Amino acid sequence: MVEKGLSRRRVLAGAGALAAGAVLARLNGGIADAAAKDKIPVENWPWPYVKLDPAETAEIAYHAWYRLYCGGSVISSIFGQLRKKVGGPYNSFPIDSFIYLEGGTSGWGTICGSLGGMDIVTNLIVGPEKIGPSVWENHHDAILMGSDIMQWYTDAQLPVYVPKKPMITAQIPTTISHSPLCHVSVGRWMKAADKPLNSPERKHRCARVAASVAYHLVELLNQWKDGKYSTEHVVWHPDEYGITAQNDCEDCHGSNVPTPPEPSKKPGPAA
Amino acid sequence: MVEKGLSRRRVLAGAGALAAGAVLARLNGGIADAAAKDKIPVENWPWPYVKLDPAETAEIAYHAWYRLYCGGSVISSIFGQLRKKVGGPYNSFPIDSFIYLEGGTSGWGTICGSLGGMDIVTNLIVGPEKIGPSVWENHHDAILMGSDIMQWYTDAQLPVYVPKKPMITAQIPTTISHSPLCHVSVGRWMKAADKPLNSPERKHRCARVAASVAYHLVELLNQWKDGKYSTEHVVWHPDEYGITAQNDCEDCHGSNVPTPPEPSKKPGPAA
Repeated sequence: MVEKGLSRRRVLAGAGALAAGAVLARLNGGIADAAAKDKIPVENWPWPYVKLDPAETAEIAYHAWYRLYCGGSVISSIFGQLRKKVGGPYNSFPIDSFIYLEGGTSGWGTICGSLGGMDIVTNLIVGPEKIGPSVWENHHDAILMGSDIMQWYTDAQLPVYVPKKPMITAQIPTTISHSPLCHVSVGRWMKAADKPLNSPERKHRCARVAASVAYHLVELLNQWKDGKYSTEHVVWHPDEYGITAQNDCEDCHGSNVPTPPEPSKKPGPAA
Repeated sequence: MVEKGLSRRRVLAGAGALAAGAVLARLNGGIADAAAKDKIPVENWPWPYVKLDPAETAEIAYHAWYRLYCGGSVISSIFGQLRKKVGGPYNSFPIDSFIYLEGGTSGWGTICGSLGGMDIVTNLIVGPEKIGPSVWENHHDAILMGSDIMQWYTDAQLPVYVPKKPMITAQIPTTISHSPLCHVSVGRWMKAADKPLNSPERKHRCARVAASVAYHLVELLNQWKDGKYSTEHVVWHPDEYGITAQNDCEDCHGSNVPTPPEPSKKPGPAA
């Protein structure tokens, strides 16, 4: 299924604009009307970004992991630098509260915390400039950049980043998670390494994964800042699968992948 | 496995304090030293809370779903009211950016967005008062409250909340997700209802799920504000399973649930 998924994405490699259009159409379907009625004031969002050094950010994230775990470390590595270089809204954002992203959200093994932290960063920096129908054109970039990085994460031999000052010097294996879920990602690595969750090797591995995500995130943010970012290969999964989904259906379902009900032609109230 | 998990939790029903102690011990293991070395300034966190009306909050969340989807609607329903009743930090928090939590994070079907939004709210409101070893004693409350609500979500017949002014009037089934994952939660409901993802019934269902989570979250926050909150039955999953995990091992693994490597007695650098 992963191979099939990759193949489909390759076939759809030129369909980034199409996918972006689909997201835009979906959003425009109902948000414009609802936004007009909403009384929440226009927010100061997105937040200013100045280009950062990917390797420097990754090294910060690696060491921050030992205080804030995977999600907090990714946010801290980027927003911490932006507090110094930009200030403003970054100073009041409670970075440390996102420690709960650890262990796939409070130890539950759902989305890898480094991806949860990454998505917060992308959506705060690459968001619409104000609330209203026309500016949702920008918003899909934030969602698609997050989705790009999630796809990269599922396909990559992790961890990628090698810290300059590692907490331990042991050699560890790399593994492909085929999933954005903490449980699957760390479980596949634990099996390959034969190391328990509380081992120094596993902690070093997850700190390096967070650093790897921070590195790649800054690469894409820098491209975006230069006006050179475009989504590579990500499609909107619900359109592809008929349900919110990863690309690894057979990983849980085996050969008995359910078929979702046929999409409705009269979807009713928007969203 | 779900039954087994529930049984184990019931056996451990009186172990809330024990679990809390374990989290605290884990956190104190390394954060204190690292925090002392960290140069990130003390953050204005946690944020002030005044008691809200659960039903009123749920109704707001239900309607906000049609603009901000599951995660954004939960955050908006609570922080939107606190902007008016408290102001301060809530005014600068970019609520709308959390629209990306939709569909289990950008459509990937990972953690249900309403839980992702809920965890942000609990951790911003029920956090430590300052950064330092002694105050991490408070932090476990935030993580455990989030974990309590995730457990409640996996066990509940969802959706619970019935909106006063529903977007559609059709009767819809309720289902137990047995999982905090969007894909599993919405997939089980779609199967029971025989309705597609883009149907008005499914949207109504997810808007009601977000409203149900907001309702229960405010119930617990109000208890906490009155000094009456204590975790009911949640244990720290990594300690129970040897890996970050849900309670539904056999749901994906079938009868072939892997055994993680034995915990290390020398866990090395902390975290």
